[in-house]
Amino acid sequence: MDGFPPSLERVIEAFSQFPGIGKKTAQRLGLHVLKSDPNSIIEFAHSLVDVKEKITFCYECNNFAESGKCEICINPKRDRQIICVVEEPSDIFLFENTGFRGVYQVLGGVLSPLDGIGPDELNLKSLMGRLQNVKEIIVATNTSVEGDATALYLAKLIQPLGIKVTRLARGIPVGGHLEYVDEATLSKSMNERVEIA
Amino acid sequence: MDGFPPSLERVIEAFSQFPGIGKKTAQRLGLHVLKSDPNSIIEFAHSLVDVKEKITFCYECNNFAESGKCEICINPKRDRQIICVVEEPSDIFLFENTGFRGVYQVLGGVLSPLDGIGPDELNLKSLMGRLQNVKEIIVATNTSVEGDATALYLAKLIQPLGIKVTRLARGIPVGGHLEYVDEATLSKSMNERVEIA
Repeated sequence: MDGFPPSLERVIEAFSQFPGIGKKTAQRLGLHVLKSDPNSIIEFAHSLVDVKEKITFCYECNNFAESGKCEICINPKRDRQIICVVEEPSDIFLFENTGFRGVYQVLGGVLSPLDGIGPDELNLKSLMGRLQNVKEIIVATNTSVEGDATALYLAKLIQPLGIKVTRLARGIPVGGHLEYVDEATLSKSMNERVEIA
Repeated sequence: MDGFPPSLERVIEAFSQFPGIGKKTAQRLGLHVLKSDPNSIIEFAHSLVDVKEKITFCYECNNFAESGKCEICINPKRDRQIICVVEEPSDIFLFENTGFRGVYQVLGGVLSPLDGIGPDELNLKSLMGRLQNVKEIIVATNTSVEGDATALYLAKLIQPLGIKVTRLARGIPVGGHLEYVDEATLSKSMNERVEIA
């Protein structure tokens, strides 16, 4: 026993279930709960229950949404001619910070025959149903074997429809030292070099 | 806007109020809430409200407690002849892991005249009221100027009653390299060297 009262122990235990939160951090967060204003903690507790009740998936792109459509699909200013295809809803928030103004499609995973994930397990049908008037599909899957295979599969499926299919550039990270870049990335960055404009 | 639905935004905002939780970690924790089993999140929310309702302070030592007395003061196996004096309740949990089997007294701070904290602002009265049959007071304040001043003040107050007053040893951390130890610590470790038994 650590000397924590049972109710505090339960809070610490709950915090330690979160990813990246170890025992020490969970204790610090639990103790912070005790020191915090009761109203802010009650509000926090409500927000947790609230988010679980409210969040569903956008029927258009499968992003997180509170009503039938997500914030991005609702927005009339987004460019519906470019669809960025991602693996998970959480990937969308990464691209939102890059200034991308098109729309998204969440696949819900990548092709992985060994794990039993074939084309039918991904949200391909809803993607295929959205291709009218689309000019470009950016496949933004991870650079894993499965991610690359999925990108190729999508390209073969969609290019015949006359739609441009692109994928993210690979190369040296911005601010990265050449010394620390792995061989595969370095050879990619050589092969896909661009002319200095 | 990051493209998060408002209810998710609120959860992320609440997480980012915790110490050591930045924006990125708060997003990761918020997304984890969405992926988690609803029951575990509802339980977590309940535990947060619960801990704020239940936890008060032990009337004996001022530790966190659910009933009038804390888990440690209730325990008949603890040695009431040794009291470890700490600044905050959260310090107690650190010492519990060292195998200390005495009891505690939480001061609620340290003497700091510049911040207007004098002896009357600390829980000294309840400490003084517990000194019957006590053999040793371990002053486990931090090694700040204020912590040291508080330790000296307590020693002057309590030693005349014939009670031993000790403080924690200072020296090289276990596993620490001499190279990385600061000068003040190193000279402490020289002055307070112990004979090899």
